[in-house]
Amino acid sequence: MRRMRWPWRLPTRTWGHDSAMYLVVFRNRKRSGIDQQTYADAAARMEELAPAQPGFLSFKSYTAADGEVVALSEWADEAAARAWGRQAEHLAVQAQGRSQWYADYTLFGCNNPRLHTFIHEDPA
Amino acid sequence: MRRMRWPWRLPTRTWGHDSAMYLVVFRNRKRSGIDQQTYADAAARMEELAPAQPGFLSFKSYTAADGEVVALSEWADEAAARAWGRQAEHLAVQAQGRSQWYADYTLFGCNNPRLHTFIHEDPA
Repeated sequence: MRRMRWPWRLPTRTWGHDSAMYLVVFRNRKRSGIDQQTYADAAARMEELAPAQPGFLSFKSYTAADGEVVALSEWADEAAARAWGRQAEHLAVQAQGRSQWYADYTLFGCNNPRLHTFIHEDPA
Repeated sequence: MRRMRWPWRLPTRTWGHDSAMYLVVFRNRKRSGIDQQTYADAAARMEELAPAQPGFLSFKSYTAADGEVVALSEWADEAAARAWGRQAEHLAVQAQGRSQWYADYTLFGCNNPRLHTFIHEDPA
């Protein structure tokens, strides 16, 4: 796994990748009236656990103007992403998410996506 | 292309898809000090043009706490996504983006991603 110059600005570390990787795009909307603190605590715990998984490369979360969220995570390969999906504490939180938090979600799993990168050589 | 029940809440239309599709994940950071109005005008023009392309399914943009942006677009297939990438006005804006706006970007192109969806049946 070669490091790239892309400045990922990740919360826990800075990684890059070449094109052999697995990208997970988790797009979700929460229900109204959920317990925000419980959700935030669980999310923080997952962000703490995921980087300890073999093959973890990066995680970052983004929010749309209407509150919809996309969480991108990058993994060395599909097996690594799936192993995280089966991690015991993560499984419990996934079940809690479906029963209490999510109005809907779509998870896209992308094996070896085609990559185009650009880095401005002389940043203003 | 079967419609799904996922409420995409798109700016221009509501579409869904089954698993045969092409997902483009465009992750980018702008330089500091860019002309925000020129950028916003160009982005709005692209959001107007893209839905007129054959095979366009959806577009939505999300922002991270640090200002990094992810734009997700969905296409019927890779050929449709690539045709949009070669559209004349879009090509000109891409060049403008590299010369004036972007500090860096990564574009992931995902052919027929693995999909998992969830919809809460009785929204709170």
